[in-house]
Amino acid sequence: MLQSFTAATSPEQGPLRLKALRAELARRGLEGFIIPRADAHQGEYVSAHDDRLSWLTGFTGSAGFCIVLAQVAGLFIDGRYRLQVRAQADMAAFTPVHWPETQPGDWLSAHASGDIGYDPWLHTPDEIEKIEAALAGSSIRLRALDDNPLDAIWPDQPAPACGAARLHPLDLAGRSSAEKRADLARILAEDGASAAVITLADSLSWLLNLRGSDIPRNPVMQGFAILHADARLDLFADARKLADVILDRGVTCHAPAAFLPALAALSGPVLVDPASAPVAVMRALKQPQRGADPCLLPKACKTEAELDGMRAAHLRDGAAMVEFLSWFDSVALSGQTEIDMVRKLEALRAATGALVDLSFDTIAGTGPNGAIIHYRVTEGTNRTLQPGDLFLIDSGGQYADGTTDITRTLPVGTPSAQACAAYTLVLKGMIALSRARFPVGLSGAHLDALARYPLWLAGMDYDHGTGHGVGAALSVHEGPQRISRIGTVPLREGMILSNEPGYYRPGAFGIRIENLIVVAKAPELGDGRAMLAFETLTLAPIDRRLIHRDMLDGGEVEWLNAYHARVLQSLSPLVGAGARDWLKRACAAI
Amino acid sequence: MLQSFTAATSPEQGPLRLKALRAELARRGLEGFIIPRADAHQGEYVSAHDDRLSWLTGFTGSAGFCIVLAQVAGLFIDGRYRLQVRAQADMAAFTPVHWPETQPGDWLSAHASGDIGYDPWLHTPDEIEKIEAALAGSSIRLRALDDNPLDAIWPDQPAPACGAARLHPLDLAGRSSAEKRADLARILAEDGASAAVITLADSLSWLLNLRGSDIPRNPVMQGFAILHADARLDLFADARKLADVILDRGVTCHAPAAFLPALAALSGPVLVDPASAPVAVMRALKQPQRGADPCLLPKACKTEAELDGMRAAHLRDGAAMVEFLSWFDSVALSGQTEIDMVRKLEALRAATGALVDLSFDTIAGTGPNGAIIHYRVTEGTNRTLQPGDLFLIDSGGQYADGTTDITRTLPVGTPSAQACAAYTLVLKGMIALSRARFPVGLSGAHLDALARYPLWLAGMDYDHGTGHGVGAALSVHEGPQRISRIGTVPLREGMILSNEPGYYRPGAFGIRIENLIVVAKAPELGDGRAMLAFETLTLAPIDRRLIHRDMLDGGEVEWLNAYHARVLQSLSPLVGAGARDWLKRACAAI
Repeated sequence: MLQSFTAATSPEQGPLRLKALRAELARRGLEGFIIPRADAHQGEYVSAHDDRLSWLTGFTGSAGFCIVLAQVAGLFIDGRYRLQVRAQADMAAFTPVHWPETQPGDWLSAHASGDIGYDPWLHTPDEIEKIEAALAGSSIRLRALDDNPLDAIWPDQPAPACGAARLHPLDLAGRSSAEKRADLARILAEDGASAAVITLADSLSWLLNLRGSDIPRNPVMQGFAILHADARLDLFADARKLADVILDRGVTCHAPAAFLPALAALSGPVLVDPASAPVAVMRALKQPQRGADPCLLPKACKTEAELDGMRAAHLRDGAAMVEFLSWFDSVALSGQTEIDMVRKLEALRAATGALVDLSFDTIAGTGPNGAIIHYRVTEGTNRTLQPGDLFLIDSGGQYADGTTDITRTLPVGTPSAQACAAYTLVLKGMIALSRARFPVGLSGAHLDALARYPLWLAGMDYDHGTGHGVGAALSVHEGPQRISRIGTVPLREGMILSNEPGYYRPGAFGIRIENLIVVAKAPELGDGRAMLAFETLTLAPIDRRLIHRDMLDGGEVEWLNAYHARVLQSLSPLVGAGARDWLKRACAAI
Repeated sequence: MLQSFTAATSPEQGPLRLKALRAELARRGLEGFIIPRADAHQGEYVSAHDDRLSWLTGFTGSAGFCIVLAQVAGLFIDGRYRLQVRAQADMAAFTPVHWPETQPGDWLSAHASGDIGYDPWLHTPDEIEKIEAALAGSSIRLRALDDNPLDAIWPDQPAPACGAARLHPLDLAGRSSAEKRADLARILAEDGASAAVITLADSLSWLLNLRGSDIPRNPVMQGFAILHADARLDLFADARKLADVILDRGVTCHAPAAFLPALAALSGPVLVDPASAPVAVMRALKQPQRGADPCLLPKACKTEAELDGMRAAHLRDGAAMVEFLSWFDSVALSGQTEIDMVRKLEALRAATGALVDLSFDTIAGTGPNGAIIHYRVTEGTNRTLQPGDLFLIDSGGQYADGTTDITRTLPVGTPSAQACAAYTLVLKGMIALSRARFPVGLSGAHLDALARYPLWLAGMDYDHGTGHGVGAALSVHEGPQRISRIGTVPLREGMILSNEPGYYRPGAFGIRIENLIVVAKAPELGDGRAMLAFETLTLAPIDRRLIHRDMLDGGEVEWLNAYHARVLQSLSPLVGAGARDWLKRACAAI
């Protein structure tokens, strides 16, 4: 079992550890110290070695940070985690701060007056410069520390992650690492840069066609790289990770400790991303050239081989989903809990024999728990499925050939008319985006409204983006593509996104319907304008029992029936006899 | 008659004038000179005094510029005017350049090597700095000239505009000039600025509650102003314009020649808009503080009094439109021309007794002429309405209380099924935007797709924005609000926009349906989220004969019928008996 349901946290240790940290800070002449929930690679997950925020405070959420001062320790938590933090951290020792409403610079201005330390490996230049701008004119100064004072008082800190890496084969990647490096090197040379620094784990893994096991859920290898404008690459990573890997000619592996000296030795402008690289990297460079990580855009535009891998993964994953959905409808749900559902679905994915990891911890919320957008079930919150509930399940698998992410919402017993009406509005938006054709050059911000419009007309909305970028056998959340009001990067062929409008009625129910989609050339039509459209990757029935048929127009019905026909045809051969019968009914035309 | 149909242009004078200008440039040691179609106030229209581009080249379009070098004179023209320029300018003397595809900096780099003069009153800092950036590293330098060499060779150049100004009464403006100045002054003081320079004519007219007659179509007074952080205002304008006006206490009028010395005498940071102020203003300031013209946003958010004025203007204008539309349906169209239509509509607007000016020259295109997006009929292009044509008419009136802008597309005889299908797709988009409810904080870029989606699904689109900002008894085109993929300013209550999707089939027909809409608080609905919606200002039937009823969904039919019921109820009392009968039929439910 990959997913655990106990939040491994020791809030009772918080006050003692805080006391030790304060003593350490005092010894160093610091008024305060910032502890982020981040490592040097700024990914969504951190290894046990880097789980400093949780060790200190007990809080295990995926975002947030703590600023420890002599008298007060502010624990900055966003809206998702405001209840969780109260359960996990000692509220006498730590003061929760509403973030991003309260920004660290403003909070520091109100509470501090002297030197505040930070670990320059754990923060980006953008982040630190924003705080410094807010502190301008005050006596408070941020000070980059050579070693982390929290690590100094963490006696049994786990060693840095050292998971085995493996080659991601060419038939799945579609382009060799040498080709990728040559392309990027050419761009670097054109832009007058002598090198680029790569610090994001998924960029590194994409560029080297490697996959790793340093952190949960994201099959990436952590490390740093310097890509030179002649296409040579210096890799800085623990060599033990690479025991099973033969590196390309032109790629040289060095010990992590050699990274800083190598940065300092670079001459000429060196491309570095101030949004994701550590401050320590920026400071080490003689001539930094600020710009986006050059891997981001080519990584986002998938090759045909990557898309083929994603399609294969979605067939496999769709079959597991169908086994789950048919089981859900056949079993007596009475007494079954959210955790039972998560276990069942994970077991069915594992039974494919191809599951490498989950894409993320499954979100399984029934009734009111479904309305908590980032809900993660624990033993403490685990709820029994009740007749009349909507049950929302958002999950995905990491396979060698692809990454999946799917949400379905299911009725437990007979759903209310109100729930069906809301479900149908969400579905209308999800279909509108699925069917969209649009001119080249538009970004996700231009399309987001299509998915929300049916809800808006009814005075409803959802407080999350409509879609995030998705990696190919990489991170389930990747940029720069996204469908949201802040998604300003033009969509390009091969970009994979989620399409997941929702609706949440607090205390009552949550609805989300999610498929993954790929940007593709639109088939010629009308005036023959060059347009883009979406191919849907995800294959699994969308629950028909929750649909108010008369709220759908002809085009929407047509899309739904065509999708279900495709699901039936694709997955029928891949599921057991019982599931096949169920699938036929679930995919019947409406 | 306000609109003329002859393009007053003398292409035959071009070569001689060009020769004289080149001699003048040689005398001054200049390799070249830039002649924009602009005055110091960067509006859409220029007075005869400032119509330098047309005097030199013969080209009368509303945008473009000429760069005269010793051997070549590049005439930079955008896509709208590529045919027109060939008819109006001597193509042996002037070389048309495709703009914005070719940028002036790049063109200069290829053709010039020395000093290029420009009149610093006719260009903005943004414009000049963009060219200078492209010239970096070359030997070419832009030189701001103290006097305009073209004016020096223009013997009978008309005098600067000196149209009479009038007060815009408080019951139409809703806020006194003193209040507006006090509000802006407070913001200036908060931002640490000692003053702001106002150079846009509609900003000035709004701020002083004045209207003027310096240029056609826009009822603005041209002038410059310095608004001080203590709310005093120095106005620089020809006093003769203000003969009928008593200026507020705190507003002092100076001769235009006093403007530059007054700028030079200012101390402290002075707010100036690099996107619209003349370079000469920026250069005169000791301490310019770059930022948007502070009038833009408050001017865009109309007061209730302004909205009431706009509503009254739209009732009056709608009644004139109904007289026109009913006449169109009752008269034998055989032999009637586009110019006949323009004349008839203008006469009906004039018959209201309240017409101050047109909002812009009426666009009236029948058949293939309707597909030319910015078509202006002249004696040369004037086409007879033919059976089977679609006739597109886009027009508006300037009244003391408001500005209108309306497009309707009408069938001449029996329309083709193809035209009706396209018309219905355009109508669906126009209705989608009219009905939209959306969260606070969204901009036009977020909503533009709603108006295009029905066309996109059919592989169709239109190559213009969906909506421009509209002034209240001011310019029919105003910023910063707009509905287009580049409209990034959040929509706010009181902003007026056009809603005008279209479809153009070159050589065949053009379709556009346009209403003006106002951003307003949405009535509470659903979850009680604070949302915005649009109130429709424009009142006139939308031609039912072009609608494929079965392509509309229930919500669309409901909107259309409700709109027509409102049009009927509002305008019936205001039109003659014949038009009233026609209106009843035109507004019948579908």
